[in-house]
Amino acid sequence: MIHRNLCTLACILWSALATHASEPLPSWNDSSSRRAILSFVAKVTDKSGGSFVPPAQRIAVFDNDGTLWPENPIPFQMSFTIEEIKRQLPQHPEWKSDKDIQAALSGDFPPLLRDHFRGLLHIISVAGSGMTTDEFAASVRRWFASAKHPRFNKAYDGLAYQPMQELLAYLRANGFKNYIVSGGGLDFMRAFSERVYGVVPEQVVGSHTAVVYELRDSGPVLVKTMNRLFVDDGAAKPEAIHQFIGRRPIAAFGNSDGDKEMLEYTTIGNPLPSLGLLIHHTDKEREYAYDAKPQSSGKLITALAEAPQRGWVVTDMKKDWRLIFSE
Amino acid sequence: MIHRNLCTLACILWSALATHASEPLPSWNDSSSRRAILSFVAKVTDKSGGSFVPPAQRIAVFDNDGTLWPENPIPFQMSFTIEEIKRQLPQHPEWKSDKDIQAALSGDFPPLLRDHFRGLLHIISVAGSGMTTDEFAASVRRWFASAKHPRFNKAYDGLAYQPMQELLAYLRANGFKNYIVSGGGLDFMRAFSERVYGVVPEQVVGSHTAVVYELRDSGPVLVKTMNRLFVDDGAAKPEAIHQFIGRRPIAAFGNSDGDKEMLEYTTIGNPLPSLGLLIHHTDKEREYAYDAKPQSSGKLITALAEAPQRGWVVTDMKKDWRLIFSE
Repeated sequence: MIHRNLCTLACILWSALATHASEPLPSWNDSSSRRAILSFVAKVTDKSGGSFVPPAQRIAVFDNDGTLWPENPIPFQMSFTIEEIKRQLPQHPEWKSDKDIQAALSGDFPPLLRDHFRGLLHIISVAGSGMTTDEFAASVRRWFASAKHPRFNKAYDGLAYQPMQELLAYLRANGFKNYIVSGGGLDFMRAFSERVYGVVPEQVVGSHTAVVYELRDSGPVLVKTMNRLFVDDGAAKPEAIHQFIGRRPIAAFGNSDGDKEMLEYTTIGNPLPSLGLLIHHTDKEREYAYDAKPQSSGKLITALAEAPQRGWVVTDMKKDWRLIFSE
Repeated sequence: MIHRNLCTLACILWSALATHASEPLPSWNDSSSRRAILSFVAKVTDKSGGSFVPPAQRIAVFDNDGTLWPENPIPFQMSFTIEEIKRQLPQHPEWKSDKDIQAALSGDFPPLLRDHFRGLLHIISVAGSGMTTDEFAASVRRWFASAKHPRFNKAYDGLAYQPMQELLAYLRANGFKNYIVSGGGLDFMRAFSERVYGVVPEQVVGSHTAVVYELRDSGPVLVKTMNRLFVDDGAAKPEAIHQFIGRRPIAAFGNSDGDKEMLEYTTIGNPLPSLGLLIHHTDKEREYAYDAKPQSSGKLITALAEAPQRGWVVTDMKKDWRLIFSE
């Protein structure tokens, strides 16, 4: 084992030197946000300092919608799901009496986003139910290949925030294990997280329903169901972090009140140094501007109000980000 | 990124050379089992061969009870749970009417082990319910520090099978990510898996119930409940592998019919090369001998019968293992 540890150490030193060569986080303006991130990472990776955190404990958790990519005009998975519902509609006359499906089809979105997106998660599980996980993943990939965001007129997976892409890479280069902990669907996110964010499937935590194992003539499959819905938002985020990861994170990144408990769990009374950061959507010109209002799928009210007393960094997208999307 | 990849490559080469220097799996006799493992690992790590599997996809899954340590005379977590029940009994008069608890206290174990251990998992969740996850972990650690196995008269965590410890280390040195996928409790296993097996908490999948997040004056806690019991055995193993890992494993190790579906999912129609291995308990002198009978917490009947047609390796503990426990 010794040679392996030496080798790992050499890798870390090598990365540290390489990181020095090019400035990290180039799409972040020189702001208190950027400085807070750099100083936190410097602190936890400095072996000679008193705040060193061993790599195995460097767990960072990221919300997805509104944190790593936009959540407007509606969450991207909602656009995908509405397409799926339209496609499958002829086979499902019973959907006529499902009021969430009818709301989605008529464009009446606010009721679906209330109460931790329960209506949205319901239509997501209805639309996926009965498919194998492979069929579902293929369907997500097809959608990404054809659908375009209505405002930016780009493929949805081309809309990852460039500064957050740099942050993911910077943390990874500094020995962090990045997890996505999102209200979005587990199977939906895993169909693109590695390709788009460099986050492997086993580091994605999300909303989900039970799958059922079947050994078919073609081989083993897992069939999606509507049972045991778990909505990974609010207090459910630290609950899911415990179940899926089993360690307390040392860094948490979110943008809405649904991320408040995840930031609390990461930063309050953590025996290790920790960082909580909220992305504040303030840029109407380049992206969107919202917190308490106007209407948006994510709200940022309580978490924003508590940020100063909790020591959470608030990133102002308009001021702190030189770029929003890659050019 | 290039320097990182080069560095990783150097690490792999370095490990490969170091592995060559000392013979791998020294506690395994030179048998078809040992040769099957060595040849599988050689094949998937050989970049020039047609069966190379990139490290990110080298997922290995291990059952715990009966695969990594004994499951007799009763599963170790059952001994722990009975101690816990006795300790808490005075505060819980209502347990008088719980027939599973009464069976456990009277030593009538077989009913608790039927139907994928449902009774055992029930008493486990009853005994943990209301504790924070930190309190529970402390309680598990206290038990390990004092309890002794009735036959071997050693601490339970000193009873990991030496050949399997070597296998875990060998796979790890060859770029595999080892997961435990066990019917045992998630929080129970995470209290010792890293220390005993070198398996970090985020690579442990197990039976569990919901936890509830609370922000107390002392800080955030997660409280164990009896809700949403998930019993990670049988078909639930591939289901849990999908939910927690999201990738199909390429190697699976088990010892009972409860591992059959996990081995199927790993080996049948997998587009990647795969290995399924069953530990057959054949050594009454040094450990235990059982399959269909006599009474044991794990049964090996169907999976053993199917092994030849599925191409699963069957390891005969008596013949194939030079050592069972470390000396």
